[in-house]
Amino acid sequence: MFKGPILKNFETENINGKLIDNVKASIEKKDSGALGKIFDKLPSADTADIIEHLETRERHFLFNSLKPEAAGDILVEIEAPIQKSILDGLDNRLISKILMQVDSDEAADIIGNLPDRRAKDVIKTLADEQSEKLERLLQYGKDTAGGIMDLEVVSALEDTTVGDVVKTIREKKKGVENLYHVWVVNNLKRLVGVVSLKDLVIEAPDRKISEIMNPEVISVDVHRDQEDVAQLFKRYDLVDIPVVDANYLLVGRITHDDIIDVMEKEVDEDLSLMTGVIGQEIAEESTLKISKARLPWLITGVFGGIVAAAVINQFETSLETVMALSFFFPVIMAVGGNTGTRAATIVVRGMATGDIRFVSIRKRLWLEMKVAFVNGIICGILLGLIVGAWLSDFGLGTIVALAGVLIILNSGFTGSAVPFCLKKLNIDPALATGPLITTLNDILSLLIYLGLMTLFLRLCA
Amino acid sequence: MFKGPILKNFETENINGKLIDNVKASIEKKDSGALGKIFDKLPSADTADIIEHLETRERHFLFNSLKPEAAGDILVEIEAPIQKSILDGLDNRLISKILMQVDSDEAADIIGNLPDRRAKDVIKTLADEQSEKLERLLQYGKDTAGGIMDLEVVSALEDTTVGDVVKTIREKKKGVENLYHVWVVNNLKRLVGVVSLKDLVIEAPDRKISEIMNPEVISVDVHRDQEDVAQLFKRYDLVDIPVVDANYLLVGRITHDDIIDVMEKEVDEDLSLMTGVIGQEIAEESTLKISKARLPWLITGVFGGIVAAAVINQFETSLETVMALSFFFPVIMAVGGNTGTRAATIVVRGMATGDIRFVSIRKRLWLEMKVAFVNGIICGILLGLIVGAWLSDFGLGTIVALAGVLIILNSGFTGSAVPFCLKKLNIDPALATGPLITTLNDILSLLIYLGLMTLFLRLCA
Repeated sequence: MFKGPILKNFETENINGKLIDNVKASIEKKDSGALGKIFDKLPSADTADIIEHLETRERHFLFNSLKPEAAGDILVEIEAPIQKSILDGLDNRLISKILMQVDSDEAADIIGNLPDRRAKDVIKTLADEQSEKLERLLQYGKDTAGGIMDLEVVSALEDTTVGDVVKTIREKKKGVENLYHVWVVNNLKRLVGVVSLKDLVIEAPDRKISEIMNPEVISVDVHRDQEDVAQLFKRYDLVDIPVVDANYLLVGRITHDDIIDVMEKEVDEDLSLMTGVIGQEIAEESTLKISKARLPWLITGVFGGIVAAAVINQFETSLETVMALSFFFPVIMAVGGNTGTRAATIVVRGMATGDIRFVSIRKRLWLEMKVAFVNGIICGILLGLIVGAWLSDFGLGTIVALAGVLIILNSGFTGSAVPFCLKKLNIDPALATGPLITTLNDILSLLIYLGLMTLFLRLCA
Repeated sequence: MFKGPILKNFETENINGKLIDNVKASIEKKDSGALGKIFDKLPSADTADIIEHLETRERHFLFNSLKPEAAGDILVEIEAPIQKSILDGLDNRLISKILMQVDSDEAADIIGNLPDRRAKDVIKTLADEQSEKLERLLQYGKDTAGGIMDLEVVSALEDTTVGDVVKTIREKKKGVENLYHVWVVNNLKRLVGVVSLKDLVIEAPDRKISEIMNPEVISVDVHRDQEDVAQLFKRYDLVDIPVVDANYLLVGRITHDDIIDVMEKEVDEDLSLMTGVIGQEIAEESTLKISKARLPWLITGVFGGIVAAAVINQFETSLETVMALSFFFPVIMAVGGNTGTRAATIVVRGMATGDIRFVSIRKRLWLEMKVAFVNGIICGILLGLIVGAWLSDFGLGTIVALAGVLIILNSGFTGSAVPFCLKKLNIDPALATGPLITTLNDILSLLIYLGLMTLFLRLCA
């Protein structure tokens, strides 16, 4: 942990820009001395950040000039797409050296970023204990508790003493850097309690662990979804959690910093409505990969728009009578889209944070309907007045106003109901905040607007 | 901490629904015994959750039947709008009892949810030490380090020993529940180092603190924005951070669970594009309050749509010549809106997580332009073919294709450039993912499409 430079780094973006220019210049001159001076004192997260701002060529030069013992900590801080390109330029021996230095969960992440073939080759070069650990971790799904846990736990048998546990901690070198709890297991290795470091500090060395432990420990199954684990952390303000298998055997632990990563990924997913796309896109540097990630949406939009065109086509006669009807397509779609997306965002986010639950669906839908009614009346009247005044036809204005109310009611309903339906169907409800709701609302809004108008024109004729 | 019931609660939503029905039935029967049985073993976060699912009347009954010593922990877990309505129903004496039980930062949050007048009255009823603490906390902005810190820190003078510190921890009752670090101060009370609990566990009691402390401690100024603090936690995987004033005097600490709350709020802000609206809306129960929060957006949409209508009006002659041009307004706006929102979301999110910085603006814009070009070509051709085939006019189809390319290029550029501009102007860049970009893109897209079409029709005539 460092003081001065880090905080300054954070204070202003400029210093970072200057620093990057310095690094680039030193790489240009191949001045390893100057680079050493810059990076020796910098925390790995900051070094990783600078590396992300360099060109591929510069990255390889810099990474190879890093001290091998620091390279691991830096590598794990680098975003996946860039990490992959750096790994491409390293030889297997260096990678296996790096894997020996980092925590087991980080080692598994690095292995996961290698092509399958290479991953196997690298694992072969590791010491038996290391490779066995890694293979144990790699068997769990990436998004499960097992996929994010590390194996460096400190456990104690229940019939040992405080003094024994303190001795164990003193002797251990790995996995005690971020130690908050010691998990207590019985003779069958089953999790039976927890002791905090504070207890170890204040209790006498000869006290039995079973006497001071808390037997009511929150644990999580190794196959549990990582988002459920994050919910547990948020709900109970946890700093770490023990991971157990089906027989309640202690297999690892998850710490607060892992959960912050999960939360960020979860938000990215919600924002991107497709698994992990946003997080990747931010760091991604390949035009084609980003383009490929966005195309499905765009094409959905194109086809939705064509359906809308076909709908409008059905009302050709009305449009021929009053061409100005088409002027208001954008505003009709704007109020519908706006209402629908907003309602969907609230429901999706509420379900993600656990604040909106299935038990309260009816309450939520009813609330959304009331909100849509109030806003529909206000916007409808506003819209009707503007259109009526513009076209000097308040009969038409009234119909636009009525259409506005119905469209906002309809969009408010679809916006809040669709996420619940998706969730029931086991589809990610976040999909509802994307082009799906927008396109659906566009088409329904046009139908309501043009339908009402046609009815009105026929009555007038 | 508890085991069985909590995990089960989390496993399925149904159990929660049944539990709520049970609670409602017991409240109906005014069966305090049954309620006691349910809530005695339930963690406060779960009790708070159940209270949120009740009607106002039921909430008041339940809250008054809670054990006073548990009420504080439960109250702080309840969402702000509901907390306010519960506070309305409690008398000042009970509130001040509650404030004595909770941590200083939580007490300040509760006070913050009371009307100004009442807050002052309640503070008067507190013990001197308590009210002085609270007033110290309340002077800091809600969104600053001072606003989220608590005052329950354990500090040690640098010339004391491990044994002394252990004694202090043993004697303290408050603020040692979630203890991870002891902050070391010099005679002037300035922060000079940090000792982890692990160090206290493994070092001999007679060792000097100054010998075992780490002098390079990351601290944060009391006036620092809470989002900056969250970035520090994420970046350096912190579990807690000491808060200092301008003279480096230790004034409090922030822990990992506070930061998770900040992160959630930050995401809510980004999603809602207006300070804190989403988080409030999720728990809000007043139709008018939600309606008021959403109206500004809707009205922006209405006026944007009217401007779009005025733009279309300028091209009346072209529309009269080929009425089918209006059929494609929705698709034109869909591809523009889709591209713009997506690009804006990536840039806004990247800036929020700190992955996209000012130093790389040019790189990012260039990347977005390349992506827009590729996607523009693909969608443009697709659109041109469909329109050409539909209207049996491939000349018109070609113009639509060309319009598609230009619209996607334009939206990709505005979508990624506007957030940077907003940030430079010190406006929340998240605003760019809202109706602002959508409306701007709608209008520009229609201008491009109708402009090109008019040019084409004139050339043909």
